Amino acid sequence: MSYDRVAFVGLGLIASSMFWAMRRAGMGAHVTGYARSEQTRATAREIGLCDTVCDDLASAVRAADLVVLCLPVGAMGEVMAELAPHIKPGATVTDVGSVKRAVIEAVAPHIAPGVHFVPGHPLAGTEHSGPRAGFAELFDNRWCLLTPNGADTAAVAQLSDYWQALGAKVEEMDPDHHDLVLAVTSHAPHLIAYTMVGVADDLHRVTNSEVINFSATGFRDFTRIAASDPTMWRDVFLTNKDATLEILGRFTEELFALQRAIRTGDGEMLHDYFTRTRAIRRGIIDAGQDTDAPDFGRKKR
Amino acid sequence: MSYDRVAFVGLGLIASSMFWAMRRAGMGAHVTGYARSEQTRATAREIGLCDTVCDDLASAVRAADLVVLCLPVGAMGEVMAELAPHIKPGATVTDVGSVKRAVIEAVAPHIAPGVHFVPGHPLAGTEHSGPRAGFAELFDNRWCLLTPNGADTAAVAQLSDYWQALGAKVEEMDPDHHDLVLAVTSHAPHLIAYTMVGVADDLHRVTNSEVINFSATGFRDFTRIAASDPTMWRDVFLTNKDATLEILGRFTEELFALQRAIRTGDGEMLHDYFTRTRAIRRGIIDAGQDTDAPDFGRKKR
Repeated sequence: MSYDRVAFVGLGLIASSMFWAMRRAGMGAHVTGYARSEQTRATAREIGLCDTVCDDLASAVRAADLVVLCLPVGAMGEVMAELAPHIKPGATVTDVGSVKRAVIEAVAPHIAPGVHFVPGHPLAGTEHSGPRAGFAELFDNRWCLLTPNGADTAAVAQLSDYWQALGAKVEEMDPDHHDLVLAVTSHAPHLIAYTMVGVADDLHRVTNSEVINFSATGFRDFTRIAASDPTMWRDVFLTNKDATLEILGRFTEELFALQRAIRTGDGEMLHDYFTRTRAIRRGIIDAGQDTDAPDFGRKKR
Repeated sequence: MSYDRVAFVGLGLIASSMFWAMRRAGMGAHVTGYARSEQTRATAREIGLCDTVCDDLASAVRAADLVVLCLPVGAMGEVMAELAPHIKPGATVTDVGSVKRAVIEAVAPHIAPGVHFVPGHPLAGTEHSGPRAGFAELFDNRWCLLTPNGADTAAVAQLSDYWQALGAKVEEMDPDHHDLVLAVTSHAPHLIAYTMVGVADDLHRVTNSEVINFSATGFRDFTRIAASDPTMWRDVFLTNKDATLEILGRFTEELFALQRAIRTGDGEMLHDYFTRTRAIRRGIIDAGQDTDAPDFGRKKR
């Protein structure tokens, strides 16, 4: 069973991609959207994003069977408090936040009896943000993790079907485990990339034009990661503090061991380490989660 | 003036890409090649890499006007000592190593009077290695840095023309400055990526299948970087020790500042930092050194 009316709260990369993926899937649902910024709403109207773009939160969610919170994690609680009275009984509320425990703590207290709250996280994104950044293929073959946390199983199943229709693969997970897994596979790597790009920007013996021109493989990828939305990522780190700090602690410990091997000239340790990490790459390609094309196919330009 | 006879010592990704780029450019030079591994020589013969694949070093370089050392940095000195007596007067020797000071120290003592040594470094590569990994477009619009270190200007100009014919842009640089720039834009980022992938592999509360399946943007890019050739990278770190350790020290200092901001909940500091790093990305795209396509065009698959 699919939803008759879907409301997007927040109209950035994820909401707009969800909308185009719904259209691609031929879903007949009526889609409403709301964004706090007047400019975002104007852009959404201009590009035909949503059937109706509403100027207030209440109108956007009032009739919805599914309300999708597409907001920075830090904004979820406040917005949910404001829209809670307007959600109809039997509706499902979900979100797309990169952190799950903090979202549950912020949102769940505002969920009325008879409304289903099924937190979610599509593992998909680009370094671009805003309503124009979306595209229908964003979720294809990507995972969407749901952390139902005791929600009604029929509501969970319906949301799972919906995500699969958008192209995603769905798995359920405990919220705390989700936050740890993502700290490893996404949050710590992002912080590290931001840090490395910041170091380059600061190093006055190397000019920024040298950093830019001679950004070989390696740094170039870091700059892409470090171009992601600052508000979204600030909120991720502040709300997944413990897991991120734990992983960064492990990372630093390991980095020091490798630094020591460089300092002492322990080539065997370095070679063994670099050989081991190759296997994980192979696994990711075999699992269809990345392309094996050299240089991401950049050479084809 | 182009070279009549070119010899590649080592037949991996870079040498094979240079060969195909020479063919694409319609260069008439006779190309010889040598690799220590019999299997690599057999593969080269099978795929038509080089006009003549030689079974010994001396035959490969004897008649060459240009000898290109396409070896891990740590192997350059020993191989150069072996081939030095066979290089003809007036020939140019160059290399493609990622570190320049150490290569100069290892190779220059073996250069006979009348032979020109012009160290070089094409900033191009993929995570694949071996003779089958090459393709003619690898150097297109990429920089090749030459660190002539006092070499004959006509020999430098000839090598510069050659690289431009392969598709590269050429710039001259002081070897020590080269090593610092590359420590920032390539060597430190690679070590960091290797480290992060190693941490994930080690973290037993998160299974490897979770790491593989849920490797979102961020970690996925790290795994690609961390799949690069272990021998090449071991040698890079061991031979560019000082600059790499200096940059890693700066990196750790900066990472600790960001960790502290996370721990104390300093959202403003994080947001400012993440905003600043966006500008560098913009510069790289404007300089034509990367694509602005979301997700590197992965979505098009």
